Amino acid sequence: MIRVKVVGATGYGGVGIIELLLQHPEARLVGLVAREDVGLPIAEVYPHLHGFCDLPVLAADDPRAQEPADVVFFATPDRVGMSAARAELARGAKVIDYSGDFRFTTPEAYADYATRIGKEPAHAAPDLLGRTAYGLAELHRDAIAKADLVGNPGCFACSCILGLAPVARERLVEPFSLICDCKTGVSGAGKKVNASFHYPARYEQMNAYKLAGHQHVCEVERELSLQARTEVRITFTAQVVPVCRGILSTLYGTLTRPASEAELVALYRDFFKDSPFVRVFGSKAAIGTLNVRGTNFCNLVVSVDERVNRLRIVAHIDNLMKGQAGSALQNMNLLFGLPETAGLNRPGTYP
Amino acid sequence: MIRVKVVGATGYGGVGIIELLLQHPEARLVGLVAREDVGLPIAEVYPHLHGFCDLPVLAADDPRAQEPADVVFFATPDRVGMSAARAELARGAKVIDYSGDFRFTTPEAYADYATRIGKEPAHAAPDLLGRTAYGLAELHRDAIAKADLVGNPGCFACSCILGLAPVARERLVEPFSLICDCKTGVSGAGKKVNASFHYPARYEQMNAYKLAGHQHVCEVERELSLQARTEVRITFTAQVVPVCRGILSTLYGTLTRPASEAELVALYRDFFKDSPFVRVFGSKAAIGTLNVRGTNFCNLVVSVDERVNRLRIVAHIDNLMKGQAGSALQNMNLLFGLPETAGLNRPGTYP
Amino acid sequence: MIRVKVVGATGYGGVGIIELLLQHPEARLVGLVAREDVGLPIAEVYPHLHGFCDLPVLAADDPRAQEPADVVFFATPDRVGMSAARAELARGAKVIDYSGDFRFTTPEAYADYATRIGKEPAHAAPDLLGRTAYGLAELHRDAIAKADLVGNPGCFACSCILGLAPVARERLVEPFSLICDCKTGVSGAGKKVNASFHYPARYEQMNAYKLAGHQHVCEVERELSLQARTEVRITFTAQVVPVCRGILSTLYGTLTRPASEAELVALYRDFFKDSPFVRVFGSKAAIGTLNVRGTNFCNLVVSVDERVNRLRIVAHIDNLMKGQAGSALQNMNLLFGLPETAGLNRPGTYP
Amino acid sequence: MIRVKVVGATGYGGVGIIELLLQHPEARLVGLVAREDVGLPIAEVYPHLHGFCDLPVLAADDPRAQEPADVVFFATPDRVGMSAARAELARGAKVIDYSGDFRFTTPEAYADYATRIGKEPAHAAPDLLGRTAYGLAELHRDAIAKADLVGNPGCFACSCILGLAPVARERLVEPFSLICDCKTGVSGAGKKVNASFHYPARYEQMNAYKLAGHQHVCEVERELSLQARTEVRITFTAQVVPVCRGILSTLYGTLTRPASEAELVALYRDFFKDSPFVRVFGSKAAIGTLNVRGTNFCNLVVSVDERVNRLRIVAHIDNLMKGQAGSALQNMNLLFGLPETAGLNRPGTYP
Repeated sequence: MIRVKVVGATGYGGVGIIELLLQHPEARLVGLVAREDVGLPIAEVYPHLHGFCDLPVLAADDPRAQEPADVVFFATPDRVGMSAARAELARGAKVIDYSGDFRFTTPEAYADYATRIGKEPAHAAPDLLGRTAYGLAELHRDAIAKADLVGNPGCFACSCILGLAPVARERLVEPFSLICDCKTGVSGAGKKVNASFHYPARYEQMNAYKLAGHQHVCEVERELSLQARTEVRITFTAQVVPVCRGILSTLYGTLTRPASEAELVALYRDFFKDSPFVRVFGSKAAIGTLNVRGTNFCNLVVSVDERVNRLRIVAHIDNLMKGQAGSALQNMNLLFGLPETAGLNRPGTYP
Repeated sequence: MIRVKVVGATGYGGVGIIELLLQHPEARLVGLVAREDVGLPIAEVYPHLHGFCDLPVLAADDPRAQEPADVVFFATPDRVGMSAARAELARGAKVIDYSGDFRFTTPEAYADYATRIGKEPAHAAPDLLGRTAYGLAELHRDAIAKADLVGNPGCFACSCILGLAPVARERLVEPFSLICDCKTGVSGAGKKVNASFHYPARYEQMNAYKLAGHQHVCEVERELSLQARTEVRITFTAQVVPVCRGILSTLYGTLTRPASEAELVALYRDFFKDSPFVRVFGSKAAIGTLNVRGTNFCNLVVSVDERVNRLRIVAHIDNLMKGQAGSALQNMNLLFGLPETAGLNRPGTYP
Repeated sequence: MIRVKVVGATGYGGVGIIELLLQHPEARLVGLVAREDVGLPIAEVYPHLHGFCDLPVLAADDPRAQEPADVVFFATPDRVGMSAARAELARGAKVIDYSGDFRFTTPEAYADYATRIGKEPAHAAPDLLGRTAYGLAELHRDAIAKADLVGNPGCFACSCILGLAPVARERLVEPFSLICDCKTGVSGAGKKVNASFHYPARYEQMNAYKLAGHQHVCEVERELSLQARTEVRITFTAQVVPVCRGILSTLYGTLTRPASEAELVALYRDFFKDSPFVRVFGSKAAIGTLNVRGTNFCNLVVSVDERVNRLRIVAHIDNLMKGQAGSALQNMNLLFGLPETAGLNRPGTYP
Repeated sequence: MIRVKVVGATGYGGVGIIELLLQHPEARLVGLVAREDVGLPIAEVYPHLHGFCDLPVLAADDPRAQEPADVVFFATPDRVGMSAARAELARGAKVIDYSGDFRFTTPEAYADYATRIGKEPAHAAPDLLGRTAYGLAELHRDAIAKADLVGNPGCFACSCILGLAPVARERLVEPFSLICDCKTGVSGAGKKVNASFHYPARYEQMNAYKLAGHQHVCEVERELSLQARTEVRITFTAQVVPVCRGILSTLYGTLTRPASEAELVALYRDFFKDSPFVRVFGSKAAIGTLNVRGTNFCNLVVSVDERVNRLRIVAHIDNLMKGQAGSALQNMNLLFGLPETAGLNRPGTYP
């Protein structure tokens, strides 16, 4: 059994990976660490876990939190993982970090990202950056399998990169023409209360935010540029709508040559033929975010506005699954040579 | 493997049992029957099943729908199961019916129920009524295990009976003093569109309905009377609130003698000590319906208003799970001698 | 024009009365006071007021906040109004307070209330209590018209008292048999963020809270006892459901003699014949909280469970209107001899 | 008083204009016509109107429906108004139609539109097309004031045209570069029940639809082309999210020359300086659709992605107000020489 420690266990990212690991055939939770609710059984923090997990929430410096683990998930805000990862790696654990701490491979790239979120630009463990794999399995499966340190992708970024990678690789879109119009459910902002996510302020509210520049732009442009072997720039709009779980990203790009929907659907299906969690649909499919809720799937709808030669992809994910804990578990599976779908092979519930 | 046929496969009750059976260790779906969407793969009707279930929807009279099954779920409206059960039983299948068709053991009791829902009072297969078990495992575990025909309880009824059975058995409440104030999410009304459940008509709407008498009263009174060995009458209020899944039933009764919360919590825990899906909490517990969503649990909060010597129980279930497909699967497990929790042992997801 | 000052202008109760006063034919806002957002124009705090109100938010001790006003609304938490009312009264202003500070007429009654909300039992201005009117116009119209200090009712209390006053006055219900099962939308908890009202924690959540005793019990029992001329006790259950605005209170009581729905509907209509904001319906009416949202109406549905001789009233209000700012404005109209409906005579919007 | 008849009175568009007219200083409802609920008082169909409007719903051929009116609103589906307008005009009434029937000025333009919605391409009253005004007051104030037949704009179209007209007129955006990414609340689909808008199917659902081409494209392109004096083409994406009221349209276009946000904000404010219902904000404004709900305002947030020289406008409207009944009333005010804001000058409610 893979022994697992979760740091940041009481946030949404923490409880998400706990839920998944409790159903995983090869994993066993051995430690839960958080800054809040220390000393409480996790089932008191999250009553739905009553009878499923009796572990207590430990402080990071609690001796019990130092027990050996085979993998440590840092479901923590930016700059927590970068300080603690070295010690975990030294003890022989593999590390999967949810934040931006290990999504970039150079201090410069990190600094660009950090500036956007108002954090100090200097990385606390710059030497580790060269060792990290970007945890989007569909593009970096082999690198992840060989790594011991994985930077899990941002939720919006995951949807945008999966939605545009095939045409970027084929250089089918103008590299400066890309627009990512992204709508997220409120859980994407995490568990911390906030006036903007207070129920009465949100229940009939749609709004755009961070118009000056969202931090996920960095990783999307980096990944798409890698695919395209040329610089790619996106205009990115983050928007919040009153659902709990779900990201709907509508992605636009000017085609470099005319291409039919059928051709593009075929291209996408081929690109993702070994990726069990990506499903490709034509423009007539009647699907939405509810159809991926609670699952690790990314559903892509491909369409073309032929009048203006523009590609349009609609990407659907559950921001807490494929956009967070699901991808993290998929990465754990790769790190340990397990089937990518272990513990993730479920359809979700409807309605 | 237990071969399973689902009749009424395209409704919420149908898709609910399909989702559960796809994850069940001992069951295999062999046939899906419905009146709508005949000929379509179920994954076109419910896109989240894409890649999980490729069975087509069959008409009831399709030859492929006659393949042998070990158990047939009738996730169908009233009066469908009563007409078709005999043939299934004759073929050797066990039958679990979701409707009121087999919840009653005499034609008279059925007629009372049928009248409340505006149906013909005569049962189509009255001779089968004597053979049915009422599918609330917590009260009728042994009878279900010996039966081959099970009438699954109503969703509201399930929450009310579990919430009041312990005090009814102990005759701790006045038998005519009981009030069941029940609130359900909208999925309880099923998949069929209706002006009252059109999104704009519902999103900020709470209302009571069927004030003249809800049909679940019959089974609640029957079951509580059985426990109490005396006639019990309830005042029942059905209410709808804008959530998708969840029933919150607040149950009141005048105590026949003073009793403390602690005494009653102990009584409830003892009553349900062999029931893995019932959890009992004291009045300080901070729980709600979200904590049982997607699971087969019934969470009960016990409190007493000592100033007026009144018991108050707050029961929480997922109306589509413990209130429907979950109980149905729990009954299947009992019918086939499997652990009651097989395929149901999951905590749900949060948030 | 009536010059109006609003203290607590930036909370939901404050913005609610501002919205109403902006449309009132006889009132003019002259000062907005709050502890947060001091110095900002109110239209920056609430962008929908842009172009309608340019007043700044003032600190309580700002000289501009001392300008003369004819009436001051304290849309403030408990214990704010009781400290500041005397000075306002001395300056000749009438005072309407939203909190429990002036709902009670004796220090003892206040102490009972204060204890329930965990506040100091001693009132800060006990001599003012004898001078206050309880601001439920339907029961205390004349007293309010003569008063200069009004304690606006609690939102739940308003729905329960209106729903039960007619039968209490006629002594048609057993005085210890009353049950108030109340469900509120989330706005009832105000603007302050809270883990329980964080959107993801609430969107599919229903729960009961304060089972040990809600503070509105005091005023409901006091008012119903006054009507009944005997002690009345209620069992009260507060519940929250995921709507923004709305209270649905289902009220139960054992009838002291058999009475038909028709008789009771007639009784209720007669009781409220001079109350323009109370509408009485029989049990077949298809109405819910959405039908009073944004309005000052209280809709009552009358029904009887004749099998057990129990009355059941379903009361519908908008908790921020009839339950708060609407009642407050209705009281202002009474204080100044205006028609009760001035500035309140609107049907709301649908859907 | 202006005598008003509403045809299609029982739909959302009908009840919306009724609510507004009940508060309008110069209008009086004289007739309500619909195909459903004929014979019922409107207050039985919409209980919130109880006490505000006692008119019955009449069939179109009821003699009482022929009473003279000064203006007739056709809040009806496509092809109703085109058949009935001539008779109303002949009787001296002015006509405001909500559908696409009178949004176009030539049979060819209508045919293009009609084809997109699957309707017969031939207009039933082509000779009336030359006489119609497009009912977007901000662009066609003078033409509306002189007309007697107005085609009210589509809800999406209203948000897109207002958001892009200023830069189109200045030729500041490449005419084939425009993208309209539009999200609507569910009320936009009207009152008719539909599987896609059944509450359980919608409460956590976001999806795009009509990817092959939405009918509002026609009027957006026509209006923007008129402003730009050159052909404009848009890529348009219609999306539904689970709110009741609100449209959030995010509009993109490549700038023909670099322009700062400040310059563009100034341009927009100047363009709309005589338009009381358009408010222009810079990219730091924290606003969303909730801030225009229940009002006739269109709030525009202006931003520029300078890295790629792209304009981005976020337009916020209430689809049932500025997107429908509010614009219709604004047009009525223009038709009768009243202030544009008569009966519309209200801030809405929050939350």
